[in-house]
Amino acid sequence: MSSSFNTVSIIRKKREKESLSSEEISYLIGSYTKGDIPDYQMSAFLMAAYLNGLNTEEAAALTHSMLHSGIIVDLSHIPGLKVDKHSTGGVGDKLSLILAPIVAACGVPVPMISGRGLGHTGGTLDKLESIPGFTVDVTLERYKEILEKQNMVLAGQTSEIAPADKKLYALRDVTATVESIPLIAGSIMSKKLAEGIDALVLDVKFGSGAFMKNQQDAIALAETLVGIGEEFGKQTIAYLTNMEQPLGYAVGNWLEVKECIDCLQGDGPEDVMEITHLLAGTMIFLGEKADTIEEGVKMSKETIQDGAAFQKWLDIVKEHGGDISVIKTPESYTDAKFIVDVEAKKNGYITEMNAFSLGMMSVELGAGRRAKEDDVDPSAGFILHKKIGDRVETGETLCTLHTNKKDVVEQCKQMCTRAINIQRKAAEKRDQITYKIDKSGTHKYVR
Amino acid sequence: MSSSFNTVSIIRKKREKESLSSEEISYLIGSYTKGDIPDYQMSAFLMAAYLNGLNTEEAAALTHSMLHSGIIVDLSHIPGLKVDKHSTGGVGDKLSLILAPIVAACGVPVPMISGRGLGHTGGTLDKLESIPGFTVDVTLERYKEILEKQNMVLAGQTSEIAPADKKLYALRDVTATVESIPLIAGSIMSKKLAEGIDALVLDVKFGSGAFMKNQQDAIALAETLVGIGEEFGKQTIAYLTNMEQPLGYAVGNWLEVKECIDCLQGDGPEDVMEITHLLAGTMIFLGEKADTIEEGVKMSKETIQDGAAFQKWLDIVKEHGGDISVIKTPESYTDAKFIVDVEAKKNGYITEMNAFSLGMMSVELGAGRRAKEDDVDPSAGFILHKKIGDRVETGETLCTLHTNKKDVVEQCKQMCTRAINIQRKAAEKRDQITYKIDKSGTHKYVR
Repeated sequence: MSSSFNTVSIIRKKREKESLSSEEISYLIGSYTKGDIPDYQMSAFLMAAYLNGLNTEEAAALTHSMLHSGIIVDLSHIPGLKVDKHSTGGVGDKLSLILAPIVAACGVPVPMISGRGLGHTGGTLDKLESIPGFTVDVTLERYKEILEKQNMVLAGQTSEIAPADKKLYALRDVTATVESIPLIAGSIMSKKLAEGIDALVLDVKFGSGAFMKNQQDAIALAETLVGIGEEFGKQTIAYLTNMEQPLGYAVGNWLEVKECIDCLQGDGPEDVMEITHLLAGTMIFLGEKADTIEEGVKMSKETIQDGAAFQKWLDIVKEHGGDISVIKTPESYTDAKFIVDVEAKKNGYITEMNAFSLGMMSVELGAGRRAKEDDVDPSAGFILHKKIGDRVETGETLCTLHTNKKDVVEQCKQMCTRAINIQRKAAEKRDQITYKIDKSGTHKYVR
Repeated sequence: MSSSFNTVSIIRKKREKESLSSEEISYLIGSYTKGDIPDYQMSAFLMAAYLNGLNTEEAAALTHSMLHSGIIVDLSHIPGLKVDKHSTGGVGDKLSLILAPIVAACGVPVPMISGRGLGHTGGTLDKLESIPGFTVDVTLERYKEILEKQNMVLAGQTSEIAPADKKLYALRDVTATVESIPLIAGSIMSKKLAEGIDALVLDVKFGSGAFMKNQQDAIALAETLVGIGEEFGKQTIAYLTNMEQPLGYAVGNWLEVKECIDCLQGDGPEDVMEITHLLAGTMIFLGEKADTIEEGVKMSKETIQDGAAFQKWLDIVKEHGGDISVIKTPESYTDAKFIVDVEAKKNGYITEMNAFSLGMMSVELGAGRRAKEDDVDPSAGFILHKKIGDRVETGETLCTLHTNKKDVVEQCKQMCTRAINIQRKAAEKRDQITYKIDKSGTHKYVR
């Protein structure tokens, strides 16, 4: 039986909505990674998988194959349960920078490998690199060394981690097969499991600023992610969080780092801190430094109050080569050339701040990427002055744009005005955290 | 807007079950043919089109784009309405070789471009090439010249005809996207319309020996083909015919040519002649040499009785360089080294002759191709001695195998025995021609 025959049969099976065996998925992913299956066969499979789905066993087998396409970092020599967090991404999502120092300060090692931003969402690596000198490109040895020394590490993905995912993701990107729950889940989990974690907390976002536009899809993704995590013997807890408006007030790389510094010094926005403490508390619980999530949340808050989290942040920035003087006096550092206020055109209450549109506006301002090769401007972005539910008066500043590109200012002011809806009556306040998903099932989240 | 962006949007639209505009399909096919869209994007589109379908307008636009990827032969200098026939292919389907001389003898020009066999079905070109000297590779000028002189031509596809289809078919073959009704229809019609025809008769087969296993799919294909033909202003009539058992008694290239010689000399099997006369009569009607199909059928029968069709056959074989001495005395010509009878193992009535299995057996014997590059053995094949409904006694010959490969004989005898089902009671006889599909709709066929 020729290799090509096998591949066509596997594609045909998925096309006919049949389930594939672990062996078939392993053959497919393994041969594709080696270059024995061409892109055109894999893209036909991906579209069939997109449209006909993959069941839990298939998604786990896919994750397994992608995970084993590269190395799995061995962190067994470092004491304690290693716990990471993953967010499906949103506009203004800077939580990693705040919760990793908190959790590390509580004694739980956080081996965090992050990605870059693309489209309307930012990426942790881009935010870190806006700090002068901060390097995310570390060798595997240095990765382990930093984790051992600091109880945390903030690194970029290397080619040794899940190379199959890298190759597959690039193909999905150009074949309209990105937004598939099992494919997304396999991509996320193969990379996270390769880090050497013992447990994982997931922040699965829904709403205009998230990849999952509706809550139902987000629940399905969260359930798939938790299912895969548990299948691999890693305790996994997911929260569903609302991404209808940007998280916090700052969007843009250095602007978000500045907001994180405020957060770590006890002056963070309420929405940012609510999710941060819940995720950090859950990580501390999974790392067995707290008996309950509630106790973990309490410990999380204490590390902010007693300065331990901020000290950890200074230590880790220094460890990664970053300039801590700009962390200590962030106002002293870089700002964009053009800083322009966008004013409210009428009185009323803010009922909508379209996070997708505002995210795309941040790309226009220079803070994000349209394509993977694009550079980002560390100083570009925007600062909101209001959030959904706030009262505004005509002429009051809604948002301040930061950019080095003069020619985009007018267009962005218009984008901003369109993205922010002001009505005479305030809309009902929506919950920020809506569901908790763990091995016991999917539960409405109660604060 | 980059070209890549367009392509991903088009794939996404089809993925989301949206209809594509003619411009989008034209862009897709045109850019793919030029090499501006890579195989991996086209295969994702093909799978999305396979699973989500293409509507009539999309199928017509696809055909239009594939048709205009190459030349459309101009036959306007040749008097009369040019009419061709296309069959979706089956085991023992040798009708083209019989009906083309009949129709040409009645004064209707038949510009026939045919394909080669693949898998369980044979191809007209392979059958013609089993005649010593017969060449199907003719230039466009020679193609027109033969047609003008003989009122018919039997040629192979050139690279000038629908190159987009050739490229797309090769991709579909390795990505499990062959069996899609609109993609099949576009492929067939783009090639037929490029021949320079004025009207077309279609033989759409269903059953184990056909590509369409069930009648419902075959009706859908026939309706799509007729819809496209009429959309292009060509009168198109399709018949649905049953391919549960091989057509006639002979399967294999030279063996089928011999059976065609019998047919043209008035000694053809009933099933072969019934469809041949109907298709030929319809072609004569569409070519306006008869006022009704019935009159066309009558004329078709007359060309057999008066020898005009056989004379036309001799003329065309000679015109294509073929040796007419083997046509006149076919028994004198080549036969395979091993000729082996397969006998009935019990008494009863034949209730099934699985055409797919028998077609695959003919490939084993050497008569067909597993892959496009394979050579075929002109003398290999088999002769049935019985058909469905016939009474057989234990030890009676069911089939005679012809092959030059000694090592396949035992296996083929077993395949043959398994493919032919003998029961104590005869099954009800099924109609060979079941539906007629034309612009007025789909009608149950009444003899």
